[in-house]
Amino acid sequence: MADRRIMLSEKEMIQSWYNVAADLPKPLAPPLNPGTGEPLTPDALKPIFPMSLIMQEVSTERWIDIPDPIKEVLLSWRPTPLVRAFNLEKALGTPARIYYKNESLSPPGSHKPNTAVAQAYYNKQEGIKRITTETGAGQWGSALAFACNKFDIECMVYMVRVSFEQKPMRKSLMHVWNAEVLPSPTDQTNCGRAFRERFPNTTGSLGMAISEAVEDAATHDDTNYSLGSVLNHVLLHQTVIGLEAKKQFELAGDYPDILIGCAGGGSNFSGFTFPFVPDKLKGKEIRIIATEPEACPTLTKGPFRYDFGDTGKMTPLLKMYTLGHIFVPPGIHAGGLRYHGMAPMVSHLKDLGIIEAMALHQIECFEAGILFAQTEGTIPAPETNHAIRAVVIEALKCKETGEEKCIAFNFSGHGHLDLSAYDKYYEKDLEDYEYPEEKIREALKEVPEIG
Amino acid sequence: MADRRIMLSEKEMIQSWYNVAADLPKPLAPPLNPGTGEPLTPDALKPIFPMSLIMQEVSTERWIDIPDPIKEVLLSWRPTPLVRAFNLEKALGTPARIYYKNESLSPPGSHKPNTAVAQAYYNKQEGIKRITTETGAGQWGSALAFACNKFDIECMVYMVRVSFEQKPMRKSLMHVWNAEVLPSPTDQTNCGRAFRERFPNTTGSLGMAISEAVEDAATHDDTNYSLGSVLNHVLLHQTVIGLEAKKQFELAGDYPDILIGCAGGGSNFSGFTFPFVPDKLKGKEIRIIATEPEACPTLTKGPFRYDFGDTGKMTPLLKMYTLGHIFVPPGIHAGGLRYHGMAPMVSHLKDLGIIEAMALHQIECFEAGILFAQTEGTIPAPETNHAIRAVVIEALKCKETGEEKCIAFNFSGHGHLDLSAYDKYYEKDLEDYEYPEEKIREALKEVPEIG
Repeated sequence: MADRRIMLSEKEMIQSWYNVAADLPKPLAPPLNPGTGEPLTPDALKPIFPMSLIMQEVSTERWIDIPDPIKEVLLSWRPTPLVRAFNLEKALGTPARIYYKNESLSPPGSHKPNTAVAQAYYNKQEGIKRITTETGAGQWGSALAFACNKFDIECMVYMVRVSFEQKPMRKSLMHVWNAEVLPSPTDQTNCGRAFRERFPNTTGSLGMAISEAVEDAATHDDTNYSLGSVLNHVLLHQTVIGLEAKKQFELAGDYPDILIGCAGGGSNFSGFTFPFVPDKLKGKEIRIIATEPEACPTLTKGPFRYDFGDTGKMTPLLKMYTLGHIFVPPGIHAGGLRYHGMAPMVSHLKDLGIIEAMALHQIECFEAGILFAQTEGTIPAPETNHAIRAVVIEALKCKETGEEKCIAFNFSGHGHLDLSAYDKYYEKDLEDYEYPEEKIREALKEVPEIG
Repeated sequence: MADRRIMLSEKEMIQSWYNVAADLPKPLAPPLNPGTGEPLTPDALKPIFPMSLIMQEVSTERWIDIPDPIKEVLLSWRPTPLVRAFNLEKALGTPARIYYKNESLSPPGSHKPNTAVAQAYYNKQEGIKRITTETGAGQWGSALAFACNKFDIECMVYMVRVSFEQKPMRKSLMHVWNAEVLPSPTDQTNCGRAFRERFPNTTGSLGMAISEAVEDAATHDDTNYSLGSVLNHVLLHQTVIGLEAKKQFELAGDYPDILIGCAGGGSNFSGFTFPFVPDKLKGKEIRIIATEPEACPTLTKGPFRYDFGDTGKMTPLLKMYTLGHIFVPPGIHAGGLRYHGMAPMVSHLKDLGIIEAMALHQIECFEAGILFAQTEGTIPAPETNHAIRAVVIEALKCKETGEEKCIAFNFSGHGHLDLSAYDKYYEKDLEDYEYPEEKIREALKEVPEIG
């Protein structure tokens, strides 16, 4: 029997990120200035991002070299294994071959540090001493804390208050890497104080936390802001995942028929699948599936329009599938998938028919995650369960038809710090939310009439 | 620069366990029947252990083959990497070379499943349908739950009540692998009911939980009991760690001058270091150091005597370093190191001068663990911090003397489910306990006058 794990040596580490913008059949719609409706100039982002990242954001170069100090840090856990899920295949009785790329092996436990390390490095290069960000469940905040600690940058995390209280372990993880973590809204920013006055007992929200982190960065000279998904440069940094996977499939003498990733803002999905897009454009038959919650069905039910990236309307307008920037999704446990929009690049590829989307209920996803933990071993993050459920669906289809398809997915993170969600599953305290049609219709009314 | 991680392929998986009993300069003192004071016959253990494990317990064969179904499960995460800690070396400014064997990569997150899988397999072979055990902090309970789930055996875990309440995530992990977990003392066993009557508001203890698990196994026909450390067969199963490490050092063209492992019952320490003992006996200069808490200094301060393995005096008498079976250590966070005794084999090697011991305070250990997390990435378990602290001490000695020693330690587990202990460190809510001299003197009065 072949090895379960297909490994690459450190010498086979990826040297350049892949930029899918170079291969698009039709260019991406630019971000717009909400005031003028005109395309945003790179300069407009300078108060909060380093110039090198802004240039990556708009680049159409196919390959962008990874600087050595970034590779040096990534080598702490990369290359990650591509694993053949023999035990899962056996449990499903499927003729399909199932593989997963194990991104849970990074110190913070997810794919997030692939971009956090790059962003910390470029900020450091441009003399930045402090980086702010927001975090919901805390995977992104802990990844940025880890990365900033590597490059000796202060890290300030505005953590949604309800998560700050419910997920104390994520906060502890950030402390170990020297980040400061405050429950948002705080009394440290103008908008934070305004939120507190207007909503005295608020649990906080990602929208409020973004506003605080952006205000903090914009009002301090040596401070920048960092985002963990959605933007082009973030997706670019994640392509190490798919580039490694392509090498590993070559070593295994196999090639995927179906690629699957869960998508909240879109970064782990993009990082895993974009490097395969050129093959598809050249005629290779690959299905590329982004999975999302039924409770927040951006790609499957939202319109493709210009909208704000945050609730507070502080960001530029982005052309994307959106449920409306004021839409607040129901409280599913996959906190990383509770976002009203989707990366413009993912949205564009969906619009072009290059990728497809599938919406899933959380209980079926937890069932799939538990099957994974009982066969392959590691407890998946609730977000990752959305990828695994789609794998199970496709593998069972193969069982029916007898097709020996090759199905690969991105194991975006472990669930060691999400075990309370599994408790709720066992206590039958999880509910499936219907598509929140009325709420979305209301939210879409506030999407600007542009583009 | 050399690769950080020295990997073995799955084909290089270890095929036989190494039994140090074959190489002892002087044989191990046998366990005694507490009633008669005579050596225990293997038959006496039959009500609670399968015969194959009892035979391993008393074997003096040097190599014992690992059955294929066990190897098949171990391959889910083995061979584990041997990692060169370049970043830690740099932070310490030491000329020493530091390596660690990463045992945190197993699904339950520690070395414990190396024996749990073997024990579940042998019990299954002998028709056992259900296994009971006790657990303190929960690393052993979750490893046995994982292993029993693999072989379709029911798993019943008696978890010390205070941990059951303070560490709900460990309990959740056990649930995902289908184990039943009860806070001990329960009302399900005679001794549990007796404990509850005598100590109405007790937090429970490992001693009580062992009594419950043993009674449950002894009073049910198809049920056996399983122990996660101390016994010879448990230590045997852990030798895959050191055997892999030896191969990896050969690949790296290096060899350790100092080997370090933390020791509670002694299993991770033994598994990592015993395979190097024959080299030492042949004249190789290796220091082998077991580290333990100052608050529970079994090897450094206890006498080498026959004593009971549990507080309730249900076990045979074992010749070991002991602080007395009624000694209850202070509440340090390294729950896995809070044991009054030590594996007889580890004790024997200490008595023979083959290994040495070092006692450490918990705050210095947390400091070392945080340094590790900030340099190498992964958050260590509080137990593992006791190994890391000793590594730091030895590496700093090398800095002083300029010696380029090779120091290797066993990274026995990650601390993802122990982050609340790190919180306490940052909140300055951890205390160092003095050597509890008076309490130990009292406890030693109850050690039987045998041997």
